[in-house]
Amino acid sequence: MGRSVLDMSVSLDGFVCGPNETPDNGLGDNGRRLHWWFREDAEADPEGVNAQVMGELMGTGAVVAGRGTVEPAGWWDGDHHDGVPIFILSRTRTAADVEQWPLITVLDDVAEAMARAKAAAGDRDVLVHGVGAAAAALSAGVLDEVQLHLVPTILGEGRRLFEGIGAEPHEFELTRNVEGPGVTHLRYRVLS
Amino acid sequence: MGRSVLDMSVSLDGFVCGPNETPDNGLGDNGRRLHWWFREDAEADPEGVNAQVMGELMGTGAVVAGRGTVEPAGWWDGDHHDGVPIFILSRTRTAADVEQWPLITVLDDVAEAMARAKAAAGDRDVLVHGVGAAAAALSAGVLDEVQLHLVPTILGEGRRLFEGIGAEPHEFELTRNVEGPGVTHLRYRVLS
Repeated sequence: MGRSVLDMSVSLDGFVCGPNETPDNGLGDNGRRLHWWFREDAEADPEGVNAQVMGELMGTGAVVAGRGTVEPAGWWDGDHHDGVPIFILSRTRTAADVEQWPLITVLDDVAEAMARAKAAAGDRDVLVHGVGAAAAALSAGVLDEVQLHLVPTILGEGRRLFEGIGAEPHEFELTRNVEGPGVTHLRYRVLS
Repeated sequence: MGRSVLDMSVSLDGFVCGPNETPDNGLGDNGRRLHWWFREDAEADPEGVNAQVMGELMGTGAVVAGRGTVEPAGWWDGDHHDGVPIFILSRTRTAADVEQWPLITVLDDVAEAMARAKAAAGDRDVLVHGVGAAAAALSAGVLDEVQLHLVPTILGEGRRLFEGIGAEPHEFELTRNVEGPGVTHLRYRVLS
């Protein structure tokens, strides 16, 4: 069975997006800087190690994310990558909100979301994305790994990785440390 | 001439100390976890790469820090390491407060503090330490390098690296990435 892997680009001061997030400014002020490494806005593809890491992400078999992540991203037009099933955590949205997107399931329980995502992904990993999903999955004990793409910039303000999780300690073990152009990819196993 | 190098242990969620800092709880709740890699509380010395990195730190020729760092640490009893000069940034303290410690100079201008520290250190680097000193030195353009000791834990709450610097962007370039037991040492050159 695959693993659930949180995947986030993060600044040196711990932010995953800048301040002033709006639907038109989805990653906040300067937040798009965090995505330069995979050249989201460029026509060229990512290079070397970055291409390999992005290939792993896009090889996942299901996606779990929160409403706060998917809504500013326009619900990914109903398909994050390759038609894999998407499970969105929300206390307020319902199935009727997403019926135009058959790949998307909305539910409010992270353990159920992860169980269904893992079942759907089979041997492939589950891509977990977003601050809310990160905190919920880690707190519920259903997060297996964390991959951080550490970007050599500081944003100063914005939204922090694991924001709102509280002061309960969690421990990790590094399993991979690889450098790509302009980014350090650090992969950890969740210990607690 | 040596370089000014900010040196901080930081959690995966960007904190350099936990919540509830007090003089008796200097690194905040769970904050001492960030110092395990150099075995501050243990009788054994740090190992391998960690010993090398700690040796570099202790080979610096002057120290620049903020009052918020040195006061909870009891002014390091007047000597951070090896009798090198210490420059403390403070708007409220005066020379009279530190006259019992001849190695310590208190001043309120970070550019002057860094110039004097570099002159005193000669060919050796200047160790910069603390959230306030980090933000002040980076904003003033007198910080040459940043070394982060990335510890595989999250604290959830506390004080962030570069807290209070505002949303002005700053860029860095990785110059070294080495793994020690239980910690990743990342060294960056400040670009802007």
